[in-house]
Order: sequence, then C-alpha cells, then structure tokens
Amino acid sequence: MSGVNYEDLTLHTDKYQINMMYAHWRNGTDRRKTVFEAYFRKLPFGNGFAVFAGLRRFVEYVSRLRFDEETIRYLAAQEERYDRAFLEKLAHFHFTGDVWSMEEGALVFANEPLVRIEAPAFEAHLLETALLNFINYQTLIATKAARIRQVVKDDTLMEFGTRRAQEADAAVWGARAAYLAGFDATSNLRAGHLFGIPTAGTHAHAWVQQHGSEEEAFRLYAETFPDQVTLLVDTYDTLASGVPNAIRVAKWMESRGWRMRAIRLDSGDLAYLSKEARAMLDEAGLGYVKIVASNDLDENIILNLKAQGARIDSWGIGTQLITAADQPALGGVYKLVATERNGTMEPVIKISGNPDKVTAPGAKDVFRIVPRGGRRAIADYVALTGEADVRRGEPIDLFDPAHPYLSRTVENYEAQPMLVPVFRGGEPVYELPELEQIRAFHRRQLEQFRPEHLRKLNPEPYPVHLSVKAWRQKTELIRKFKG
Amino acid sequence: MSGVNYEDLTLHTDKYQINMMYAHWRNGTDRRKTVFEAYFRKLPFGNGFAVFAGLRRFVEYVSRLRFDEETIRYLAAQEERYDRAFLEKLAHFHFTGDVWSMEEGALVFANEPLVRIEAPAFEAHLLETALLNFINYQTLIATKAARIRQVVKDDTLMEFGTRRAQEADAAVWGARAAYLAGFDATSNLRAGHLFGIPTAGTHAHAWVQQHGSEEEAFRLYAETFPDQVTLLVDTYDTLASGVPNAIRVAKWMESRGWRMRAIRLDSGDLAYLSKEARAMLDEAGLGYVKIVASNDLDENIILNLKAQGARIDSWGIGTQLITAADQPALGGVYKLVATERNGTMEPVIKISGNPDKVTAPGAKDVFRIVPRGGRRAIADYVALTGEADVRRGEPIDLFDPAHPYLSRTVENYEAQPMLVPVFRGGEPVYELPELEQIRAFHRRQLEQFRPEHLRKLNPEPYPVHLSVKAWRQKTELIRKFKG
Repeated sequence: MSGVNYEDLTLHTDKYQINMMYAHWRNGTDRRKTVFEAYFRKLPFGNGFAVFAGLRRFVEYVSRLRFDEETIRYLAAQEERYDRAFLEKLAHFHFTGDVWSMEEGALVFANEPLVRIEAPAFEAHLLETALLNFINYQTLIATKAARIRQVVKDDTLMEFGTRRAQEADAAVWGARAAYLAGFDATSNLRAGHLFGIPTAGTHAHAWVQQHGSEEEAFRLYAETFPDQVTLLVDTYDTLASGVPNAIRVAKWMESRGWRMRAIRLDSGDLAYLSKEARAMLDEAGLGYVKIVASNDLDENIILNLKAQGARIDSWGIGTQLITAADQPALGGVYKLVATERNGTMEPVIKISGNPDKVTAPGAKDVFRIVPRGGRRAIADYVALTGEADVRRGEPIDLFDPAHPYLSRTVENYEAQPMLVPVFRGGEPVYELPELEQIRAFHRRQLEQFRPEHLRKLNPEPYPVHLSVKAWRQKTELIRKFKG
Repeated sequence: MSGVNYEDLTLHTDKYQINMMYAHWRNGTDRRKTVFEAYFRKLPFGNGFAVFAGLRRFVEYVSRLRFDEETIRYLAAQEERYDRAFLEKLAHFHFTGDVWSMEEGALVFANEPLVRIEAPAFEAHLLETALLNFINYQTLIATKAARIRQVVKDDTLMEFGTRRAQEADAAVWGARAAYLAGFDATSNLRAGHLFGIPTAGTHAHAWVQQHGSEEEAFRLYAETFPDQVTLLVDTYDTLASGVPNAIRVAKWMESRGWRMRAIRLDSGDLAYLSKEARAMLDEAGLGYVKIVASNDLDENIILNLKAQGARIDSWGIGTQLITAADQPALGGVYKLVATERNGTMEPVIKISGNPDKVTAPGAKDVFRIVPRGGRRAIADYVALTGEADVRRGEPIDLFDPAHPYLSRTVENYEAQPMLVPVFRGGEPVYELPELEQIRAFHRRQLEQFRPEHLRKLNPEPYPVHLSVKAWRQKTELIRKFKG
C-alpha cells in the first residue's frame, strides 16, 4: 500500500466504468450529454417506505474526485494499455455536471429517482459505483433504524453495532444513518467525532472479571463515573448476583449523594429478567434506576418483548441494525434514461425479460402530492423534467396502467418537488444540513403520511405514479425494440 | 468534520473502552497485565471451517494508534469529564503489549483463540472493538468465498460486489478477503490499487443504450479493447438480439485478426440461456468465446446451475458474497481469560445461562495435530500456554467432556502451532505476507483436511479439543462461582 492514499476514493469504482470512459474518449463521444437516475425497485424489509441517506458522503466524494499521479501510474500499468492522452485527460478530471437528489431523511419509495445525474458520459459513468455503494447501504440502515424507532416509541435507542459491522466505514456511516432516522446515540466514538452524534457506553464483562468480586467492580466503576453509572449485571448470574450487587452499590451511591442511572441486561430471557429486575429495584426503592437491554435485538424481538410486558427503558441495538441482517443489501441501480444523439437529448430504455427491470426512459422529477388544506401526502408523481402542468398545479392524472379503473385526476393540490439541486456545472450548490436538521426533517416527513403506510407489518402501499407522458414514452420505446 | 482526520481509526472503538481505561487509570490498575482472546462460537453458513482474515488491517491499525490533539480535544468535551492527567496519558499512548494471531488464509474453527492479546488492561481494552470489526467481517467474506470457490472448481471467479457492499471499506477489504480465499479478480479498482489484486470488468447496459444499435455499441467496444472483449448481451433480448449481435462482431473481429474473449449473461434463466448461447457460439465456429454469468449468484445457485448443465466458464459474484447475505455477521467475541492479581496471573471466567457462552479461562495456544507420516489434520488442540507436553510431542489426550467414550490419547504426531507472534512489547515482529503467499498458504491449508470436513453441506465436524488442564481449570472456576 506504499504510496497509495487509502482515503482517496477516486478509484472506488468498477473497472468497467474506466473502460467505458476510455471507449467514449476513443470514439469521440466523451462529451456527449447523458442523464442517469438512481433508484431501487423494491422496498426493503417489507417496509412501506425507505429513509433516504448517503447524500453527504456522495457530495464529499464528488467534490474530491481527482486522479493524482500515483493513481494515473496505476492505471497506466493495466492490461487495457490506455492511451497516454486519455490518462492525461484523467489527470485534469473534475466533475462538471448537474446532480439532483432526494434530501437525507426523506421518505422515499420504489421506482422513483432518488438521484439524477446530468453530465457528460465521461463523467457520469465514473460516479455510478460509489453513489450506489453509499446510498444503498446508508438508506438501508436508516430504514431499518426507522422501523426500530417505530416499535420502541419514546424509549432511548443506542447503536452498539461496530464490532459486527461490515468493516469500519459501515460502522460510522451506519451509526449516522441510524441517528438521522431516530436513534439517540452511538457507542462508536469515531462516529461521534466525525458527525457530532451523542455517544454512550456502559462497561464490558471484562471489567467485572478483572476484579475480586462483582460488587467491588461495580463500586469502583460507580466511583469513577458517579453521574452516569450503568452496570452490566450478567457476568455471573443476573438475578442471583448481578442485580443484588447493583442494588447494594446503588444504595451506597445514595449514601454519597449519587444516583445510579441504569442496569444493563445483555443475555438470557429479557422479558422475564427485566420484570424481575424491575421488581427488585422497586422493592429497594430504586424506581429511578432504568433498565437497558441488548443482545441481538431487532424490531420484531422488541415488539414481542413489549407484548410480554418487559420493563425495558432503553435499548442497545447491534448486529441486526448495523448489518440490516434480515436483508443486508438494498438493490439500488443507476440507469441511463437519456442521451444526446445528433445534438438532441433522446430518451433511452433497457428492456428485460423481467417486467420490473424495464427502465422508465427520460429525465424525471419527483413530486409529492398533498391536497391543498390537507397535511397527508396521497401519492408521489414522477414526471418528465419538461412537464409543466404539475409544477403549475394544474390537474394531473394519477394513472395506473395495470389497473386503469384506479386512475383518477387530482386538482387543488400542492406538488412538493422532492429532488433538490446539489451540483450545478460541477459546483456544489446544496448546503449540507446539520444532522439535527436532518433529524427534524425526517420527523416532519413521517407526519406527512397516513399511519397505514408507515406500519412495519403489511403496510398499505403508498402509490408512486408515472405521468401519462412518461408512461407513453416508455411504451413507445418498448414497442420499438420488441417490434 | 472540519479538523477531523477521517483516516484516523484511534477512536474507532466503543465508548465503554475509553471509560474502562479511565476507570482502570483512576483505580491505579491501568498497568495490570491482562490476557484477552478473540474467537467465535459457531461457524458461519453451516460451513465446516472458516478462513481467517483481517490480520493485516489489525496490524496497521495497532501500529497507527495515536491520540492526536484534535482527538484529545474531542474526548475532553465528553460528559464523562475525564481528568486532564488521563488525557495527557492518552496523548502519549502507544501499544506496548504482545499479540499472537492465526495467519490470514488459515482454516480456523469455533471455540479456539484466533487472536490472543497480552497487554496492560489500559491498552487491551482499547483494541477490542476494531479487532472484532475487522476480523469478523473479513473472516466471514473469506469463508463465503471459499465456499463459492469449492463449487466452481477451476472456473474463473470475479468479485463484482462494490455497489451492494456495506459502504466503502467493506468493498475493498471484502474484495481482498475473497481474493485470498480463491477468487481470481475484483472489479474494484481501489482494491486492485491498494492490494495488488487483479482487476476485471466488462461494460454496462448504458454503453449499449448510448448507441444507435446494439451491434454498433459492441463493435465500438471491441475496437477499443480488441484484446479483451467481453460483451454484455442482455440489454434488449439475450437470444434474439444480444448473442446474434455478439456473434456478428466476433466474426468481424476475426476478420481483423482479433478474438473475442467472452459474452456476459446478467439476467434471465442462466441455465437455459447459457446452453442456448453456447450452441449458437459453437455453431458460428466461436468455440473459443467464453460465457460469463452474473446476477445475484451464490454457491447454492451455482451448484444448481452446474447440475442443470449450464455452460458457464466464468462467474461474477456480487451481493451474496460481499454482504455474506445468508449470514451477514460473524459473532466473534473478545474475552478476558486471565488478569494479574497481587502480582500473579490468574485465569478468569465469564459464566452464562447459555453453556456455549461460558468462557474457557487461561491464556491458550492452538495446535493442529497431524499424525507423523500423514498429511491430514485429525484435530485442533487448545492448550494453556504453559503446557509443555504438546510442544514436546508427548502423548496428549483428545478429551471430550460431553462424550467421554470418544476421548482418546494420541502420540507420534506433529503439533503445528497455529498462533504466530505479531507484536512483542508493542513492536511488530510479523512480516505481513504478500497476498499471493497468503493464497498459496490457504491452498495448502485446504489440503490438510479430509474432504468430509470441507464439503459445503452438512460437513463432518472437525474436532477442537480443550486440553485436560484447561478443561479442569474451567470446571473449577465454574464451581467457584456457581457454588
């Protein structure tokens, strides 16, 4: 790795992107204007919505894209034997295109553009891999976090997943995604440092093992952090040893004017143990001592624990969140929707034997349709960028090609444009919001939807409509290619 | 993020590690010697073995651990209100302990130490989170890659997963883990650049969409890379359009003295399409043109495709490998096994209601037992570091406490020590092997095992035995705590 700057993400791309850039350059089409859109085809976890995330990471990546000398040297040694003039062009590369994107924290749905890139072919290809890598992961984790937030209601939620995360970037960007979708803190100090997320931590079993007795270990820890003691009570035997020792130490703390914050359960039957521990604490007059639980928790286990009357105030969530264990990848794709031919932009299509994989041609915008005077969105409307009616608030058709009888015309609505300009002519034009602003925006987004669309099990599908013009263009292109 | 060095992993740790360091320092036990071991309790994917990986990353992390000014400033602002003298101590922190580890590429099993850390409590706590983060993920992916290598036999295997990886580090370290366990190439150029992994790529559907016709797109690509043309044939219709166009271009290439390398199938029924495409290519006298397949493949789908007689020469593997989708986390843990008390090292235990989670006390080594004159390992033997008999080749008991009738004594064996010294007194003493050496070592490791232990479905469990001394020590400590 000598000479290689680990932090430089310029080569964080699939080789075929560089090869397509080269082929365009060789064929003189590198300046040809193209439009690509990133979207996913299916919501993760059977959820009714996804929470968009990854934009900050992408903006920083685009802003720093530079092929330095060492990178050029590496490319020059590839078996493709790229022409020197091409490498020279790379050495002067910087992004010159336009980017529109959903904002982080937005509720987003399948088959609507999340990010739209308008740039010369040469540049637009390069961005695909990293963009998908960032938004696929971060959107997945933010969505999972939103599901967990929903079941815990107002309980405290802490992200504890670093040791099981898929390497270091996942730990910190995953912690950030969880926080923006409603978590309260992370255990990862680097995430705290990088992004300003509040951090939290208790102690490990090793702390208890390192001392002659559990009570001694607890007392020493309490003495070190009198304001914020959370004691892990399952090193030896939760109810026979851990909780009684914690109670003794809590009473001793009281005698010194201190108050224990919480005990933590990290194994065993959390429903039973939390109820027993709660009773023991209350019995000892320690009603103020909270109970934290952890141990491979996810939204389904939490819902079940709550249904059993578990007495848990605060949840530490690790593996299941940080890896999105029940569906560890979001299948976001990046598809060409228009390209310049003979000086004009033409919509293009990709056909597939699988109808879900046929692309919707043409550069598109997304509008969230909210009836005037109402506060709940009724549909997202995906229209070609040139369509003016929706922008002017004129009547639009919420058209369903598969079920025409469901189609209807709406008027007297507000059309909220969901894609915001992020780069214009290669210059960043979007002020990245602070995390707290993103969190607040996310909460407002949730309020825009009927609870039936938000519930975690069998949500009512929220409609996303393609405009009639966009749909017609698609069917015409299908006809052209399929005869 | 201003002022924060993204690449600095010193704070890539759970907050409780810093808090335990602080508590030790406050209690004057920060120099107390401790021994921690990292291991996992269950093999992933129902596999018979795991492939150890992550050591290089860990060594680089430990070597660079420094609390710089900005980091100290961040910690000083925490609600823990750490003492200034503690922060001063952190500012001079560097690792002074010893580390033993499995080598990357080694076959490893449940309940044997993979990494052993002997260091002052102050230092040993800090390493836990990052160590587990790296080895859990990289070992998981190397193991998944080994399963895939097993089913494809000698076919070419390419890692294509970056866009679905869990953020950027997972993409590159996952690509490396896959390569060390038998993959041939990655599409990720940054992984190629950082680690010297061969890179490979074809082209995207967008390349075809960008041109007036599929044939034109193919021809232009072939002209750009005449030595290494792999054409993606499923943009419009694989058998009606893609393969016939590829054949026309292949014949045109022949007329110019070039040879097409391959076509790539990326959707549809790969068994059917590959057989049809093979027949069409052969019919056209293009027996030398290979077939590459991709599309959410894993070892089970590949095995089924092969059983159906699919004619695929080369496999592009993405999501299922890079996220280990069927089990996206390895549950590796880091447990205290011994600590200094009153000047001597004492073994310690963690009890649990779940018997699998009770730790094995004492610092331990791992030996792979191979009968003299044989080439296949019969068991791994986990002994206390002080035990001399196994080192001297004296008779040892392969003891099974749950099934005493299975216990037996072996003699005339070779005991291969599996843990190698990596740091001594904080100094790196292990020369990190080149990736090619690791690959060769991994292949030799595979040859040490009977195929029954290696098969991907229902493998015969390979035995890992705790020495009688280590087992007695464990039972005594359990008795002490459980009465």
